Amino acid sequence: MSRTIAVVGATGAVGRTMLDILEKRSFPADHLRLFASARSAGTTVDTAWGPVVVEDLAEADPAGIDIALFSAGGDRSRAHAGRFVDAGAVVIDNSSAFRSDPEVPLVVAGVNDDAVREHKGLIANPNCSTMTLMMAAGPLHRAAGLTSMVAVTYQSVSGSGHKGVDELIEQTDFLRPDIDGLMDGTAPEPQPKLYERPIGFNVLPYAGSASGEDGYTDEELKLVKETRKILGAPGIEVEPTCVRVPVIVGHGVAATMWFSRPVTVEEAESILSDAPGLELWTDEVPTPHDSAGRDEVLAGRIRPTLGREGGISLWVVGDNLRKGAALNAVQIAELV
Amino acid sequence: MSRTIAVVGATGAVGRTMLDILEKRSFPADHLRLFASARSAGTTVDTAWGPVVVEDLAEADPAGIDIALFSAGGDRSRAHAGRFVDAGAVVIDNSSAFRSDPEVPLVVAGVNDDAVREHKGLIANPNCSTMTLMMAAGPLHRAAGLTSMVAVTYQSVSGSGHKGVDELIEQTDFLRPDIDGLMDGTAPEPQPKLYERPIGFNVLPYAGSASGEDGYTDEELKLVKETRKILGAPGIEVEPTCVRVPVIVGHGVAATMWFSRPVTVEEAESILSDAPGLELWTDEVPTPHDSAGRDEVLAGRIRPTLGREGGISLWVVGDNLRKGAALNAVQIAELV
Repeated sequence: MSRTIAVVGATGAVGRTMLDILEKRSFPADHLRLFASARSAGTTVDTAWGPVVVEDLAEADPAGIDIALFSAGGDRSRAHAGRFVDAGAVVIDNSSAFRSDPEVPLVVAGVNDDAVREHKGLIANPNCSTMTLMMAAGPLHRAAGLTSMVAVTYQSVSGSGHKGVDELIEQTDFLRPDIDGLMDGTAPEPQPKLYERPIGFNVLPYAGSASGEDGYTDEELKLVKETRKILGAPGIEVEPTCVRVPVIVGHGVAATMWFSRPVTVEEAESILSDAPGLELWTDEVPTPHDSAGRDEVLAGRIRPTLGREGGISLWVVGDNLRKGAALNAVQIAELV
Repeated sequence: MSRTIAVVGATGAVGRTMLDILEKRSFPADHLRLFASARSAGTTVDTAWGPVVVEDLAEADPAGIDIALFSAGGDRSRAHAGRFVDAGAVVIDNSSAFRSDPEVPLVVAGVNDDAVREHKGLIANPNCSTMTLMMAAGPLHRAAGLTSMVAVTYQSVSGSGHKGVDELIEQTDFLRPDIDGLMDGTAPEPQPKLYERPIGFNVLPYAGSASGEDGYTDEELKLVKETRKILGAPGIEVEPTCVRVPVIVGHGVAATMWFSRPVTVEEAESILSDAPGLELWTDEVPTPHDSAGRDEVLAGRIRPTLGREGGISLWVVGDNLRKGAALNAVQIAELV
C-alpha cells in the first residue's frame, strides 16, 4: 500500500523546515503533497519525491492522505484540519487550535510518546518554548515530580515566521547608523509592522497576544497549560514570562524548578545526560547560535537553588523551527 | 568655601554619563576635576565648569577634592579610592570593590537614602541590574516584606562599557549578510573579543564572570547579596539568572516575588505608582528603548502569580548608564 504525507503551510518558515526534515530523515512515504494559501498555490517545489506543485488549501481534496503536517496558523487549522481527518488523514497540527482539547493528545516526542496512541485523528504539536523546556523538565519530572517552576523565555523572531525575521532585519538596518542615538534615547524609532514595538536592538517583554487573563499573554498561558498537559500533572505551579529578543533562530528558557523532593545538581545532570533529544553542556554555555539547525535541545547551567533549597535553576535552548516545531511534528508522524 | 567634585574614569561610558548628568542637574560644585588612565590623560574636555584637562589617576594628587565619583573598574577603585578618602574626599564608587564591605553603605537613592549617613568616606553604588530591580522591589518590600524572588535579567552590552557596544556592532555587521546562515546554523561565527561567545543576534546566558560558587556568575551573586544589603533583609531568598542580550542600552529584569503576606496587583500598582524615581506603565509595556536616556526606571506587566498565590510577577527596565550607574552616583553625591 502506498503512503502519502502532506505538508500544509508548505511555504512558511516551519513548513519549509518540515519538508527539509522529511527529506533528511528519508521519511517513509511514497508520495508528498504540499498545500498553501491561494497566493502561493501553483508554484512548483523540487523535493526528494520529485517536483511537487503547491495546491490551494481551500480548494484541495484531501482524499488519500495518510498523515498531514499542518503549520498554517490556528485559523486555517480550525477551518481545514477536520476535513483532512474526515478524509482519513491523521493530522499533526502545529498551531494552538487544538492543544487544550482534552480529546487531542499534545505530544513532545521523547517525553510523552505514549500519548500518541490516544489520538482520534488529531495530534497537537506543543508551543515552541514549552517544547524546548519540556525536553529537560520531562525527564526531571519523571524522576522527582516537578511541583513548581518559574520560566522566563528569550524567544527568537523566527517564532513569528518569516515576517518576524524580516522585521528584525529591517529595523536593524534602520537603527544601525545611529548607535549614539540608541545610547541616549534620541534615535528615531522604526515603524513596527508585525510587533507592537521595535525589536531591533531591543527586547519586547510581551511575547504573544493579550490572553485577557490577569495581563498574561496567550504565549505565557501556553507555558502553564501545556506543561501540565504534557507532563500529565495538572497541579504543577508555573510562573511564566515570555519575552521576544533580537535573535533570528533559537528559543532560550531560563527556569527555576522545585520538585516533590530535593534534587541535587549531580542527579539533575545525570538525568539530563541520558535524556533523549537533549544534549547537556557542562563546560560551555549553549546559546541560540549553537542550537540553530540542530535537532537536539541544548541544556546547561544546572545550578542549585540558592534560597529555598533542593531546587534547580537551568538554561535550555533549542531551534524553534526544528525541535520547537517541524522536527517534533515529523517525529510524531514517525510514531504514528 | 569652594567645593570640588571629581570624576574618576571620566572617559568611559559611565564616566561620560556622570559628567553629562552633573552638568544637566547643575550640580552645586565650584570646581570639576577629571581623572583617567595614563592613555587618556592630557586630553581636554569642554564642560559646564570650563575646559578641564584629564589627569592621570596614578600620578594625580587628590588633595582638595570633596566628592569623587569613581567608575574606573574594581582594580582601580581598590588601588586609589583609599588615597582619595585619606585626602579628605567622600568616594562614591561604582565598582563592585567595596559593595559587600559591611563598613561601606550600598545605596540606591530613593530606596535606602538613610544608609548614606553611616559612611566612613566610602559609599558604594550597586550593580546596575540590582539597582533597576530595587527601584520596584524596595517600595514593595517596605509595604509587604519581600521573602523570595526569582530574578532573570536582559542586560545590554553597554553594561560592559564602550567595548561591549563595539563588539555588538562589529558582530552585527559581520553576521548581517548571512541571515540564511543564521537560520540554519551555517553562518560563520564572528571571533569574540570581549565576551566568550558571539553577542550579535544571540543571547549569552552567562553575564558576568565565574564566581566559583555553584556555577553562578559574580553578576548573579550580586543580585542576591546586594538585594539583601540594600533592603536590610539578609533572609530574602533570591534565585538569579543573568543574561546578556544584543541591546545597546537598557537593562531589563523579569521578576517573580512573594511577600510575608499576599499582595494584590492593585496594591502593587498603587505602591509603584508612588515610588520615587520609578514610572509605572499600565497601558503599554516598557522596553529598553523606552528607558534609554531617561532617569526613571520603568515598570510594567504587574501580574498576580498563577501558582503559589499572593505573589507578583513584573518587569522593570532602566538605563544602565544612568539610574543603573551614573545617575545614582550623582544622586548619592547630592545626598552627601
